[in-house]
Amino acid sequence: MADEKNVAILGATGAVGTQMLQCLAERDFPVGELRLLASARSAGKEVEWCGRQIELVEATPEAFEGMDIVLGAAGDDVAKQLLPEAVRRGATVVDNSHAFRLDEDVPLVIPEINAEDVSWNHGLIANPNCATIIGLVPTWPLHKLGHVSRMVVSTYQAASGAGAPGMAELEAEICAMGRGEKLPEPRAFADQLASNLIPQIGSEKFEGYTSEEMKMQNEGRKIMHEPGLRVNCTCVRVPVLRSHSESITLEFDEPVSLDDAREALASAPGVRLVDDLAAENARDRFPMPLYTSDQDLVWVGRVRRDISNPDEARGITFWCCGDQIRKGAATNAVQIAELLL
Amino acid sequence: MADEKNVAILGATGAVGTQMLQCLAERDFPVGELRLLASARSAGKEVEWCGRQIELVEATPEAFEGMDIVLGAAGDDVAKQLLPEAVRRGATVVDNSHAFRLDEDVPLVIPEINAEDVSWNHGLIANPNCATIIGLVPTWPLHKLGHVSRMVVSTYQAASGAGAPGMAELEAEICAMGRGEKLPEPRAFADQLASNLIPQIGSEKFEGYTSEEMKMQNEGRKIMHEPGLRVNCTCVRVPVLRSHSESITLEFDEPVSLDDAREALASAPGVRLVDDLAAENARDRFPMPLYTSDQDLVWVGRVRRDISNPDEARGITFWCCGDQIRKGAATNAVQIAELLL
Repeated sequence: MADEKNVAILGATGAVGTQMLQCLAERDFPVGELRLLASARSAGKEVEWCGRQIELVEATPEAFEGMDIVLGAAGDDVAKQLLPEAVRRGATVVDNSHAFRLDEDVPLVIPEINAEDVSWNHGLIANPNCATIIGLVPTWPLHKLGHVSRMVVSTYQAASGAGAPGMAELEAEICAMGRGEKLPEPRAFADQLASNLIPQIGSEKFEGYTSEEMKMQNEGRKIMHEPGLRVNCTCVRVPVLRSHSESITLEFDEPVSLDDAREALASAPGVRLVDDLAAENARDRFPMPLYTSDQDLVWVGRVRRDISNPDEARGITFWCCGDQIRKGAATNAVQIAELLL
Repeated sequence: MADEKNVAILGATGAVGTQMLQCLAERDFPVGELRLLASARSAGKEVEWCGRQIELVEATPEAFEGMDIVLGAAGDDVAKQLLPEAVRRGATVVDNSHAFRLDEDVPLVIPEINAEDVSWNHGLIANPNCATIIGLVPTWPLHKLGHVSRMVVSTYQAASGAGAPGMAELEAEICAMGRGEKLPEPRAFADQLASNLIPQIGSEKFEGYTSEEMKMQNEGRKIMHEPGLRVNCTCVRVPVLRSHSESITLEFDEPVSLDDAREALASAPGVRLVDDLAAENARDRFPMPLYTSDQDLVWVGRVRRDISNPDEARGITFWCCGDQIRKGAATNAVQIAELLL
């Protein structure tokens, strides 16, 4: 087919790379040749995709030859080293790493918010941080109502944010705990995560805030085109497998009614409003990570006035959950790739 | 001994009642007769305490005869029905239920904050909500520096907040999960808690806020003698056994320097400052519920400016963890009883 694109995935064996493969299939992305790039160690192994048997190829500069679109699912170092080689060979890259997100000549895109920024790319488009995506998808329709000037965010981030090793570590801990055995030594996380909370994600970055915490402000400003946005974020790892949750308080420049906010959320793309404390089943009352995993929407609930704001009409608080591997990473990247078609 | 007090515990078999027994022993409370009151079903069973064998007695009005101090660890309904009978019989009651907390003639006390309010009691003193205690113990020394006018709080509350059945339910879920078995039907919680988060504690109370969420503001105003305090609280149940954690952002009337805030926290009674992201071991970097369980202090860390506040000098953000059964309930009640000696 003339419209088909040759697609490569860099880091195809990780949690995000594997999910990208699944998203391409689910969304009927017009894939011509599919090239799966991995470490030398994985090269030669085969992966089945849509009835095709695909051999993993070692990620080298030459491996990008002939590709139209490259989806990056590797870490910052590999991304920095290899993805400019893909651009040089004519591919358009959508990269999930942190490496290029704040570069001035790289658009940073959440399709529900700033799809138009894809148009000025110079071969590389960055996929935002997972907690940033999940927090901003529901913030955006509210921003359009009253202009958000300030956000106070506390996150409840899943093990999957540390990739497949993070999920495996939490599962192994729960397994040992359930069997009354000694827990394995923590490797993916700084300490035991099962039955615990770890209030640091990333390294110290700015005045006591971690790198993960600063992403919400720095990436949010770029995505929303709001250089004055102020965000106070506290990022906490919780013993949940793969959906991130966030408690978000917004402050607006203009008054926003609760009815308008609910209506905006109910009709916003990428959002599912689940907000009825009187519902019979708990899963219909508010979003919970157990039910938001392995699907593509950000679920929003507990929408209410911020009663601590001296001007209550300018404050709204809500809770949201979304799958970290899908909308927080792979789905958003494939949506960006769709904008390139 | 002349100074000994006859002490009764109402609800002696629950998680909080059992912990009260342990706290009385640990703190060398001068206990004369110890009377343990429970349901008719438990009456007759024996409990060992400090080498004494004590038979559980059915909780009736007459069972309070001759008691000097009664510690209430029962639910609201039992508290409302029985504790006035204890007061009528001359006892001074310290009650952990919600029943009397906001009554005008009942002091609501966190000894580190308003010990002096014990003096005007009329036979009944209320112990605050667990999340309120754990959040306010570190907020108080900061309030004294710059006067807190506004709090935005997101909680990460342990299973123990739902008592022994809550802890047993989470343990049973982890046990089944670890063994690959079907999880038991949820009873203590609205849904599965293991590997999940439940963003509702208590029932709907005020404009979309739950009863648990409104306690931080309503009880906080009374304890701190600050009727104008505004609190936006989001209460979330997390799969942790017995320590509550909270992400708290404070807004002050007056500027507060970070150095002064840290110094005030480091020297505040009831607080342990654990705030060093560069420490070698994760447990020395920030408070985690795994390490704050079964001890009496509220641990505080991640202390930093609120960079979202337009006037940064008037905003501080921190993270704290404390044992919900101890400082959140039993220890605080026994500390109040000590003020009565």
